Amino acid sequence: MKTIYWENNRAIMIDQTKLPEKLEYLEIKNYNEMASAIKNMNIRGAPAIGVAAGFGMALAALEAPNNKDKFLDFMRKAKDTLGSTRPTAVNLFWALDRIMKLIEKNVEKDVSELKKLILKEAIQIRQEDYEINKKMADLGVKLIRNGYKIVTHCNAGALATSGEYGTALGVIKRAHELGLNIFVYADETRPRLQGARLTAFELSYEKIPHKVITDNMFSYICSKNEVNCVIVGADRILKTGHVINKIGTSGVAIISKYYNIPFYVVAPSSTFDLRTNVNDVIIEERDHKEVTTINGKLIVPKNTEVINPAFDITPPELVSAIICEKDIIYPPYDVNIPKILKN
Amino acid sequence: MKTIYWENNRAIMIDQTKLPEKLEYLEIKNYNEMASAIKNMNIRGAPAIGVAAGFGMALAALEAPNNKDKFLDFMRKAKDTLGSTRPTAVNLFWALDRIMKLIEKNVEKDVSELKKLILKEAIQIRQEDYEINKKMADLGVKLIRNGYKIVTHCNAGALATSGEYGTALGVIKRAHELGLNIFVYADETRPRLQGARLTAFELSYEKIPHKVITDNMFSYICSKNEVNCVIVGADRILKTGHVINKIGTSGVAIISKYYNIPFYVVAPSSTFDLRTNVNDVIIEERDHKEVTTINGKLIVPKNTEVINPAFDITPPELVSAIICEKDIIYPPYDVNIPKILKN
Repeated sequence: MKTIYWENNRAIMIDQTKLPEKLEYLEIKNYNEMASAIKNMNIRGAPAIGVAAGFGMALAALEAPNNKDKFLDFMRKAKDTLGSTRPTAVNLFWALDRIMKLIEKNVEKDVSELKKLILKEAIQIRQEDYEINKKMADLGVKLIRNGYKIVTHCNAGALATSGEYGTALGVIKRAHELGLNIFVYADETRPRLQGARLTAFELSYEKIPHKVITDNMFSYICSKNEVNCVIVGADRILKTGHVINKIGTSGVAIISKYYNIPFYVVAPSSTFDLRTNVNDVIIEERDHKEVTTINGKLIVPKNTEVINPAFDITPPELVSAIICEKDIIYPPYDVNIPKILKN
Repeated sequence: MKTIYWENNRAIMIDQTKLPEKLEYLEIKNYNEMASAIKNMNIRGAPAIGVAAGFGMALAALEAPNNKDKFLDFMRKAKDTLGSTRPTAVNLFWALDRIMKLIEKNVEKDVSELKKLILKEAIQIRQEDYEINKKMADLGVKLIRNGYKIVTHCNAGALATSGEYGTALGVIKRAHELGLNIFVYADETRPRLQGARLTAFELSYEKIPHKVITDNMFSYICSKNEVNCVIVGADRILKTGHVINKIGTSGVAIISKYYNIPFYVVAPSSTFDLRTNVNDVIIEERDHKEVTTINGKLIVPKNTEVINPAFDITPPELVSAIICEKDIIYPPYDVNIPKILKN
């Protein structure tokens, strides 16, 4: 399963708003289209957004004028546009910064040469994403035992990355590949139902036994001893070990702690933000229609007000371990995150 | 707002499956129709189910033969049919038993006399429900302070009772009536969205400021100091203080405890079951289509398996207080519940 890839100077991506009914591909021809695709969640998931941002910059480079100054202006504008799509997932900014640093480092070169370098770098980001996910899956699978029943929230699978493995779901897929007998409960994950739509789609595709639950059934299955561990992805992880992930994750973590169930986070090093303070993290507030309607039909009385924060913050004391491509990180996170990320 | 009432030898009820789009009334003409209405959740909410069960028995009495033995057989059959609709809400069995005991006590009387007594008792159950809800609202409001932001789960309002006040929402309505400045967050309560549909409808009707949240946003609003207390209803409360209520309640209670937010339960004494052990409580498993579809549209890939427990069990250590019409009950519940219920 390829979530996003580069072909004939276009970015090709699965349109995730159409799943699971239809598996359709979008052809993204310029950086503005890419910004819209990220904002509208045709593509979503922190690592996938990082790859998409890289490709967005590659598309911008192809569109940009050949005059050096105008080229640089154009690329800065593209960076700002792509960077304003979704404020929380740090991989977006990580990828944009990586391309901008490449430009700065090679600013003396010809524009045509710069364009080639940018394109190469964007493709490299995608390739690294695949390799990193495979590494995380191999590391994370050490935490899984035969017979485990695993809960995951939202979608942190192939569809949240460049493809194939994914982050949290990568660990689950690797366990299944290695012949471990596992069972997955997927939280449906309101309001956008990424668990019901995307995670169930991937698990079905991989023939991994699973059931979907509504978000409020998690405590019930824990009380029935139906859960051995929770594995989720992340959109941003701070130096302190605070995990910013899909709305509802912190509730799952609190309930896991109550039932003494290990709570694992799987995310590449590009998801870590060692600079921002927890109080300064911007939580994206999305369109209220995502909450008030389902499949276009109103589910609340007319004019009912709602909130729609896309993410919440799980404090480090609820996180049993964080799996990144470099190692499994255990508490104390403020010590071990900087140490392991430097390796 | 009258949820269910008796008129011209018929039970009239709001069809809650049509809300909030349409306010339609159903006319229930016999006990089998009543059993279907309870099972299909045209009427729902533990106290309302109790009233409906009483009216179901009254309808059965009107239908029953005038021969004493045949009459008694008919009533026993009606009791079994009504009792098989929903296994968890104890008010159902409480109302059925109350009618059966009345019959047993007066079994020497003429059938025509018995029919009159049953009808009177059913109407009495409804009247008591209204008075009890008013008492609970007056007691519970002592726990509410000006400026409180209150979370409620599912619908424990007028629509969950005979009408007007409700249980949990009765306390909230009373606070609003008394001029307290309060704000309510209503959990949407998947799968059947009683919070989004019914609680939002009632709060809007009463002009109480409110917003609807998805179930997985509760931890987020707690983390933002947006919650002063949680108030929910109950479908059954055991002698030990275990609270059986709508799926998701136990998760809300666990998260409340984590954030040190008081968690209150409001339920009449007819909701208490002092005999059953926690391990023997049957949790109703409802049609899986309630989870896999919303407004008739599939939200998961075809053939995706789900679970659909309608209730969960909140352990007593998570419950700050239980408000019944006799008093506010505090821990230790195994001591105080039997003591206060005897008063």
